[in-house]
Amino acid sequence: MNNNELSKHAVLSLWIKENIADNTFKIGDKIPSENELASRFMISRQTVRQAIGTLVAEGILIREHGRGTYVNFPGKKEPADKTKRIGVITTYLDDYVFPSIIHGIEEVLTDGGYTMSLGITHNKPSDEENCLIQMMQSGVDAFIVEGTKSALPNFNKRLYEQIKEKNIPTVFINGYYTGYNDSYIILDDVKAGEMVADVLIQNGHKYIGGFYKSDDFQGIRRYEGLLKALKKNNLTINDTSIIWYTTEDYKYYFEGTMDHIILNRLSEVTSVVCYNDLVAASLIRLLKRNGKNVPEDISVVSFDDSFLSKQMVFNLTSIVYPAKKVGKKAAQIILQQLNVSKKPEHVVFEPILKIRDSVKKL
Amino acid sequence: MNNNELSKHAVLSLWIKENIADNTFKIGDKIPSENELASRFMISRQTVRQAIGTLVAEGILIREHGRGTYVNFPGKKEPADKTKRIGVITTYLDDYVFPSIIHGIEEVLTDGGYTMSLGITHNKPSDEENCLIQMMQSGVDAFIVEGTKSALPNFNKRLYEQIKEKNIPTVFINGYYTGYNDSYIILDDVKAGEMVADVLIQNGHKYIGGFYKSDDFQGIRRYEGLLKALKKNNLTINDTSIIWYTTEDYKYYFEGTMDHIILNRLSEVTSVVCYNDLVAASLIRLLKRNGKNVPEDISVVSFDDSFLSKQMVFNLTSIVYPAKKVGKKAAQIILQQLNVSKKPEHVVFEPILKIRDSVKKL
Repeated sequence: MNNNELSKHAVLSLWIKENIADNTFKIGDKIPSENELASRFMISRQTVRQAIGTLVAEGILIREHGRGTYVNFPGKKEPADKTKRIGVITTYLDDYVFPSIIHGIEEVLTDGGYTMSLGITHNKPSDEENCLIQMMQSGVDAFIVEGTKSALPNFNKRLYEQIKEKNIPTVFINGYYTGYNDSYIILDDVKAGEMVADVLIQNGHKYIGGFYKSDDFQGIRRYEGLLKALKKNNLTINDTSIIWYTTEDYKYYFEGTMDHIILNRLSEVTSVVCYNDLVAASLIRLLKRNGKNVPEDISVVSFDDSFLSKQMVFNLTSIVYPAKKVGKKAAQIILQQLNVSKKPEHVVFEPILKIRDSVKKL
Repeated sequence: MNNNELSKHAVLSLWIKENIADNTFKIGDKIPSENELASRFMISRQTVRQAIGTLVAEGILIREHGRGTYVNFPGKKEPADKTKRIGVITTYLDDYVFPSIIHGIEEVLTDGGYTMSLGITHNKPSDEENCLIQMMQSGVDAFIVEGTKSALPNFNKRLYEQIKEKNIPTVFINGYYTGYNDSYIILDDVKAGEMVADVLIQNGHKYIGGFYKSDDFQGIRRYEGLLKALKKNNLTINDTSIIWYTTEDYKYYFEGTMDHIILNRLSEVTSVVCYNDLVAASLIRLLKRNGKNVPEDISVVSFDDSFLSKQMVFNLTSIVYPAKKVGKKAAQIILQQLNVSKKPEHVVFEPILKIRDSVKKL
């Protein structure tokens, strides 16, 4: 290798570094292939490999076997300087459940001398990606994450793998991405789903519909509970009356133009299991404006036991979601993982049923 | 135990048998608990246990630890008399893909001296249940099944377990229920999803929407392929423009009343990946009646490469679905499992891309 080649190698390294500095190549981005760089800079592939090798050694790039070379998170394998800051990423904040989770987390972290960086994803994987990158850049010691679209393949898989490689602990709440072995805290959603369905069945309901969320872990699990309850009682599933919605189409279901579709789909059932109190409240309003009353005309059960379940003319039978407990437990696990042991912990809360008067005895 | 108790035990056995005979207790149904039977017949639990024990020994009932006692499939552990009949259960038949699958199966089975029992589920787990029960009652040597709602928890789990216990081989096509180790034949749907997205990206599309099926294995996988293609090219996912539909709401999406919703959700993208040619054709009609043309205004790619993809004014870029091959392979595996080895086989077909003219170069 002559001097000329040496300087070319330096130029390429500099070019990559500058592209990272001005965010042309963002964290987690794939850089162009060796062939592409070789032809663009009119240098040999070996020279390209040398430049990349140096940047990998410096921890600026990261090679992933068979997939390519990516911009790495800044910092060493294991950051020496602890920031005493925990990244907390949740899907929503304005909802009724989340403020309590955050309060629970905050209480325990403050006691432990930690502060909290908060990110909201609106259940969008691309927002989750931004949160993860920004928090890694500004520096956090650990993550508490409510994953986005946890029932779907994970858009941010590689980022979570990189975080793991850096030995930064993560606790998932309300669900977890399958195929990982991270800590998580969940409600026993299958059992919760079974419990609300049992209430309906015990009251003589044989035709049960549902309004479930298909992109979140909890939606699939709560539906699984319905299946269990039906099977146990030798009842069958009414597919037409099981309505699945996603984060993005929720608003359309209740804006009015789809009333005829929903009424049509629920026309065969005497009761409906709703994914949460928010859906239940929206559905009850929809039924009301179409002349149907709960529980006289149709029974409704739900999850979360929020203030919504107690502000109607009747009160909603619902499953208690121990939001503050979940938050506290998540923070406790994180502190333990930072200070004591890295062993993943899996916590499953038992559901508690609140029977009120949204179910009619048939 | 006195004579009186003995006759009571016989009465209970008879009562259960008669209830099974007249279909009050159907195959797979749970019979009442020991306590319930004891109090109903005013006999001791021990007598109940004896009656049930006899019926379990006769293979009429089956005990499942911790869950209860169920009506068993008729027949011994392993049926001695082979029927030379294979149960084939598919979700649809009128669709463009299925006739070819069935032809492929039929060809191989006939050559092997087997006949076929055909059941159609319309992607309803309760219909799948009926098919499985009826075929087990009439007797089949093996099953080829396209599972219903394969992305959701399996409603017929216990039936499949009972079939397995009887050493009746099952091959799943197009997907499989997770958590089993049965034979399956699938298309590499992740790769297929990546390939169609690659076509869009190579043509300059950065904002890509989707119309995916959320209750089937293939829908989730094809979406995963989109994620991979986007990641690889440092592009992001447009959640608002990813529309998820289920078996039951498909018809509502294209009846007209939801046009404004779909147009609104796709307003930010220059292209859409459709779950299959049927969805693509429906979407293209919807766009057309709202003054939007493919590919001038919006590009569309799809899966199945059916006759639908070749009957428009333009022709649709789509992935070949090797339907007949899938059918033949399924039948070959079944014959092999019946005659040679019970080892589960997992076959993954490579996708083949047909580039036509539904994608505009940007």
